[in-house]
Parts: sequence; structure tokens; C-alpha cells
Amino acid sequence: MNIARHGTRSASQGPENYFTGPVRVETLFDAGQPARATGASVTFEPGARTAWHSHPLGQTLIVTAGRGQIQLWGKPVEEIRPGDVVSIAPGEKHWHGASVDSAMTHIAIQERLDGKTADFMEQVSDEQYQSAKRNN
Amino acid sequence: MNIARHGTRSASQGPENYFTGPVRVETLFDAGQPARATGASVTFEPGARTAWHSHPLGQTLIVTAGRGQIQLWGKPVEEIRPGDVVSIAPGEKHWHGASVDSAMTHIAIQERLDGKTADFMEQVSDEQYQSAKRNN
Repeated sequence: MNIARHGTRSASQGPENYFTGPVRVETLFDAGQPARATGASVTFEPGARTAWHSHPLGQTLIVTAGRGQIQLWGKPVEEIRPGDVVSIAPGEKHWHGASVDSAMTHIAIQERLDGKTADFMEQVSDEQYQSAKRNN
Repeated sequence: MNIARHGTRSASQGPENYFTGPVRVETLFDAGQPARATGASVTFEPGARTAWHSHPLGQTLIVTAGRGQIQLWGKPVEEIRPGDVVSIAPGEKHWHGASVDSAMTHIAIQERLDGKTADFMEQVSDEQYQSAKRNN
């Protein structure tokens, strides 16, 4: 058993090829083999978002602060708020991030398959993100 | 993709054979095959706790409110507070719950193996729990 105390975990900036704008990623846990689950608390500053991506075994998002957005490829943008829990199926292409005028924090939980938890694709362009804004 | 909105999820009372005292379990997600992870937000009223138990693929606890306790079999009790993240290895016998004078809420994440996420054993007796109190 290990207890990682509040305030003792390090955070890193979300890498530029996977995110647009300032994103802080704090790893919460990595269960390790034989388990597969990993978890992180991710904070998106206003306007920041992931690139389009999918997960080989899906993902769960538990929104903990702020107001955010999520979009499945080909579908309208959905607003997400604290307490909302989003279940994303394996292979579903999507993005998530902050709103234009509000930061957003969520806990993200996913499982590792063949050494990876996500497949990242192209960035969400400003045009796509602005379109999201208009739909809200 | 599915969004379970805040306030729309039902909660149930933790069953008497697995818990001592009032415990509210709100299922947050069950990723379903091919994934294995499940998650719940669990609130223990003061004095309430799980029975001794273990998990075939381990468990992660993210404390979100109050002040609680956790004990690994044969080890001293540890106090846990919001923001603490506890990693429990597969097969480790342990219990967790509230403090005597404070409720505690945590998000619990575990993975299913052969249809189950936990193996429950004997209850934590009042004597064991009171001993925990004295050690704090």
C-alpha cells in the first residue's frame, strides 16, 4: 500500500503535440501490472483543449472544477460541469477541454493496452473550437 | 459516449455484510468489456468502515472530503485526507472508512477479474476500530 499525500505529487505541462494551450497534468496513479488503469487530474486553462484522440480501452472523465466541453467526431459539442461523468468507448474519436471563458479540471481514467492508453491525432483547429463555441 | 450528469446518478446503501455503519455508494462508472475498470464515490458516516477485504487487481482511492482511516493487515492505521491518493496492491488485506468523529468520502477505482472486483472477509470489530483510534 502506498499513500501519495495531497500536495506532494508533481505536475507537468501537457505536451504541445497532444494539446492546444496551457494544460497541467498531475498523475494520480498508475496501477501497474497486472492491473491496467491509470489516472490523472488534468486542468485546462480557458481555450485549452486536447487534440483529437481515441483510447484503445476507452476513458472515463470525472469533472471536478470549472466548465468544459467535449465533442465526439461528427457530433455536436456538449458542455460538461463538475460532477458530470463522461464514458468514452474504445476507439471513439473525440476531444475535450476548457470553455472559452472558463478553465476546467477533470480526473481522467483509462486502461493501458499494448503499452499505450491513447492514440493522438490532429489538433482541434481554432475554427473547430470556435464552431463549438457557437453551438453552445 | 455517454454523459452521466451531476445529480442524476442513484446511490445505494453499502450492504451490511461488507460494511459496518452507514455507507452510501454512488456508482460513477463501469467501463464494461473489453475494459475492466469500475468507479464509485463512497461516503462513510463517522465510525463507518468497510469489512476487511482485498482486490484481485488492486484498488486506488482518491479522498475527496472529510477525514478517514485505512489499515493494511498487521500495520498501523493511517489517516487519510482530501487529495490523498492510496494505491492498494492486488491481494492486500485492508479496510478503510471514516474517522470516529468525521465522515469521509473517496472515489474508489478497481478492475474486474473473473467477474469480481473485491473479496470481502470478516468485519472490522469495534475493538480493532477503537484500537485504530488510539493509534492516531
